[in-house]
Amino acid sequence: MSMSVTELVEKARAGHRRSLARLISYVENQTPEGAEVLHLLYPHTGHAYTVGVTGAPGTGKSCLVSSLTLHWRQQGYTVGIIAVDPSSPFTGGAVLGDRFRMREISGDDGVFIRSMASRGQLGGLARTTFDVMRIMDAVGFDFVVVETVGAGQNEVAIAKVANTTVLVEAPGLGDDIQAIKAGILEIADVIAVNKADRPGVKNTVRALKAMLELGHRKRVISHHGMIMSQDDGAGTIVDDMWMVPIVETIATEHKGIDALAEAIASHRAYLEESGTQLQLERMRLREELMDRLQTTMLKDLLQNIDSKTLDDVLDQMVSRQLDPESAVMQLLEYR
Amino acid sequence: MSMSVTELVEKARAGHRRSLARLISYVENQTPEGAEVLHLLYPHTGHAYTVGVTGAPGTGKSCLVSSLTLHWRQQGYTVGIIAVDPSSPFTGGAVLGDRFRMREISGDDGVFIRSMASRGQLGGLARTTFDVMRIMDAVGFDFVVVETVGAGQNEVAIAKVANTTVLVEAPGLGDDIQAIKAGILEIADVIAVNKADRPGVKNTVRALKAMLELGHRKRVISHHGMIMSQDDGAGTIVDDMWMVPIVETIATEHKGIDALAEAIASHRAYLEESGTQLQLERMRLREELMDRLQTTMLKDLLQNIDSKTLDDVLDQMVSRQLDPESAVMQLLEYR
Repeated sequence: MSMSVTELVEKARAGHRRSLARLISYVENQTPEGAEVLHLLYPHTGHAYTVGVTGAPGTGKSCLVSSLTLHWRQQGYTVGIIAVDPSSPFTGGAVLGDRFRMREISGDDGVFIRSMASRGQLGGLARTTFDVMRIMDAVGFDFVVVETVGAGQNEVAIAKVANTTVLVEAPGLGDDIQAIKAGILEIADVIAVNKADRPGVKNTVRALKAMLELGHRKRVISHHGMIMSQDDGAGTIVDDMWMVPIVETIATEHKGIDALAEAIASHRAYLEESGTQLQLERMRLREELMDRLQTTMLKDLLQNIDSKTLDDVLDQMVSRQLDPESAVMQLLEYR
Repeated sequence: MSMSVTELVEKARAGHRRSLARLISYVENQTPEGAEVLHLLYPHTGHAYTVGVTGAPGTGKSCLVSSLTLHWRQQGYTVGIIAVDPSSPFTGGAVLGDRFRMREISGDDGVFIRSMASRGQLGGLARTTFDVMRIMDAVGFDFVVVETVGAGQNEVAIAKVANTTVLVEAPGLGDDIQAIKAGILEIADVIAVNKADRPGVKNTVRALKAMLELGHRKRVISHHGMIMSQDDGAGTIVDDMWMVPIVETIATEHKGIDALAEAIASHRAYLEESGTQLQLERMRLREELMDRLQTTMLKDLLQNIDSKTLDDVLDQMVSRQLDPESAVMQLLEYR
């Protein structure tokens, strides 16, 4: 006999790992049970502190996540890890050094690691990741860490839902890289320059400082990754006074991790004391709501339109008989 | 007495530049006239060949666009240029060398340059750019070139609506960069390694070739930039057999531009002969339709909901009394 969602939720909240894994699978696969899971768990969310860790391949960010996890574990906190990067050792792409470090945390009962399969669903992956963060939050993890590779829409979208986003850099990447990643730099709350025993670390720190001074921290929250196609003019600019700290780390030797954890804690304190936390949360929820409303209404509409009708409209668009806006008006008749 | 949209459209199609500029402004500012403009011009679209040129700052892509434009002009074609990159010399951020080259084309009647103000509206900017491309197409330009900086969601979104996307690289960027830009590499149809007189050009070409061999060209068209938040499962995979050519150019000396233009022409021929062109166009129009349907329905819904109701729902979400999916159900009652 299979367990009900309610039972699974209870067991997961009591610390049963296989139940937790089942709940996550329901949500990942977008089953009806998934909606029930989120409905049941939502009241229990809001406890965990979420940290996004993003950085290019080769910066050692997975190792840094392991080190940070170890640090929090030593302080008695529990940690959930979500790896979205397909090249991450958490998702099977490990190099030897990383695997060694991961072993230290993977047998630990206070750590839960889940990798997310990137199915090419852009907005979808971001939302699913957000929902999995919620599940981990609701079952009681103190920290939920999401690891993403620092490129592309997904990463930006996912990083933006975390409370604190840590950008991982490494020496030896030139100024050009920094320019390319300006978009990522903008979402970083804390920067870790990892592999700080490598030559060029001072240059990297200097280049990052220069770019931070150039940049501004005013953010239009309405344009957070989850709702990129939406354009309802409701953008609110949050004037963010946080000064992004740059922390040098050597994750393989567990060096600088205390300072990194402290920088994250400072950002957390800043968000809470300034009231930015609440403001951001409200705006994220608003965005999510708009996104879900759009998706649901489109799904409902498409159920009323048979594929022949849609094909005909597309044919007319392709042959230039019908412009997109008129096509919209025509299809909205099926509401 | 102000001119009617119909009159402006007629004048723009007859070659009157100030009318064209007015039409574009209507669309950019999302005025009711803008919708009329697109309605009137849509039947005349489909003539222009659209080329996206994307690359990091410092690769000399604006200079390359100027050189390419000069090349096409010498062959008797007209060229419309849309600059989305805020640091582009086309939008005022010129360095001396670029301005010199631009002078060669900016006085030319067969060239029309328009810069798009990035207002931080992610999906919005992509769609507006697409609409401006349509206007330039409909008034008769043979080529419409969109220049974007190769980072971020906008760029990917805009590049994906172009028939051919040219990625501009330059020597001296290490392997790390290539990894970061893997997402951009995926959308490139032609790669120009500009500044090919610089040391390291062979390494750059080799690194790019290696990355191209790693990558695959199967694309899920449904995830094209304009509709990132949508997830209707209608993704269609197009198996793209095009082999991305790498062309070495020195735009400042007008070297390699013939070869670049030829590579673009080959890609165009490939798209047309393989039938991919039609397939891509249909899918792009489908995506645009879904995106517009979502936006319109959300706008309609929000008009029925007063701000107090929305605020109450958000308050309940923030206080964990109402989960997102239940909030959606509640608000959909206002349809």
